[in-house]
Amino acid sequence: MPAGLETSVRVILVRTRNPLNIGAVARAMSNFGFLHLRVVRPYEVAFREARSAVGAAEVLARAEKFNTVAEAVADCTLVVGTTAVRQRELHHSIRRLDEAEGRDLITSQAGPVALLFGSEKVGLSNHDLTYCHWLLRVPTCEANISMNLGQAVAVCLYELVRNPNMESEPQRVEAVRAQAKDLDRLTTVLNEALLSSGYTTAEALPSSEEKVRRLLRRLNLSAADCELLLGMLRQIVRMRGDA
Amino acid sequence: MPAGLETSVRVILVRTRNPLNIGAVARAMSNFGFLHLRVVRPYEVAFREARSAVGAAEVLARAEKFNTVAEAVADCTLVVGTTAVRQRELHHSIRRLDEAEGRDLITSQAGPVALLFGSEKVGLSNHDLTYCHWLLRVPTCEANISMNLGQAVAVCLYELVRNPNMESEPQRVEAVRAQAKDLDRLTTVLNEALLSSGYTTAEALPSSEEKVRRLLRRLNLSAADCELLLGMLRQIVRMRGDA
Repeated sequence: MPAGLETSVRVILVRTRNPLNIGAVARAMSNFGFLHLRVVRPYEVAFREARSAVGAAEVLARAEKFNTVAEAVADCTLVVGTTAVRQRELHHSIRRLDEAEGRDLITSQAGPVALLFGSEKVGLSNHDLTYCHWLLRVPTCEANISMNLGQAVAVCLYELVRNPNMESEPQRVEAVRAQAKDLDRLTTVLNEALLSSGYTTAEALPSSEEKVRRLLRRLNLSAADCELLLGMLRQIVRMRGDA
Repeated sequence: MPAGLETSVRVILVRTRNPLNIGAVARAMSNFGFLHLRVVRPYEVAFREARSAVGAAEVLARAEKFNTVAEAVADCTLVVGTTAVRQRELHHSIRRLDEAEGRDLITSQAGPVALLFGSEKVGLSNHDLTYCHWLLRVPTCEANISMNLGQAVAVCLYELVRNPNMESEPQRVEAVRAQAKDLDRLTTVLNEALLSSGYTTAEALPSSEEKVRRLLRRLNLSAADCELLLGMLRQIVRMRGDA
């Protein structure tokens, strides 16, 4: 991840209701190496239960509680709200999560950055949004734009930590590949040949089968090559049977 | 998303235990426009409960159940297993989720692609892995590599649908930005000035305050400019008071 991102970003949950969601957010933060969780007016029981949840213990133990969004973002130099809304709002510019500009604005900030996530039911209020410099939208489908809170946080944090320099490979077009069921047919025939030829024994068959299955996947066979091999092998087995 | 990806990808859950996770996976699929969910030997109650869950109803209604991984991947021309394991395995190559090569292999497939996700506790077994052409790893931190199932699926699907051509903007370095608490100080002083000057009335103050707060965020002030404006404004208010 870009240097300092794990300490510069504050994930701020506003009026979260479900303890499982607070726990899930903490787990995603822990997975991607983010340290600072803040909660604003959580449902009390939710926050207490989340704190007792297993996993991501360090993030939850360090979590800070605030009464207002203003206090939660007070030390931040960039405040970004998340939204499922697609149409451009009157008051804020909206950047898609996969736009490089948004990620660069966040990762290049020296000061603390707040990422605000609203409640499960209604998201961030208009009042919450007045504290935001701009809004971030996960590119979801028209038919179901609203994400689960823990999943939305996971996707946003992944976008921040993924290495955009791993992009250099050109797009490639593949030959038509063998279907798994064709590979299975080939696996079966080859195993039978190995057994009947004495290459393997009945006792060793299970582990031999797994070896063969892996081998055939590694070969990365096209549909045509798979068919070709199958024909050749069947012929070989038949010849042995005739002998 | 790349054309056809929503119909070519099969998300395959192997021995999932928790109904909330099956529901969460279906929701993420629905968010990112994927249609085909397959489950292999789910905990029966989990699958039944997930089916009755709200949201992502279409994905769950269409979900197919299989007894073996072999049957679940039979029609697929590329089978990709997901793993939290970092070290290169003996038997499979592992690609990071943010490597362009892996995404290109998946999105350029004409035939169906299987994305396998193992159970919550132990992931995919060695036997499951023998059906895979290669493995995909989400770049998580050493300290906590194991992701929540629903979050792992969400992150993988986001990587497939995000538009990699939104990458062209150069990295930019920002001036030191004003902290939110400094913007709040400026907001307060400006509001007081607007009220005392008669620009706004006590009745209209709340909506005026929100307008001002948004205005000051839009200005995208540096810390220095914020300080400057605050000084100027305070001086103006003081002069008015003296008058």
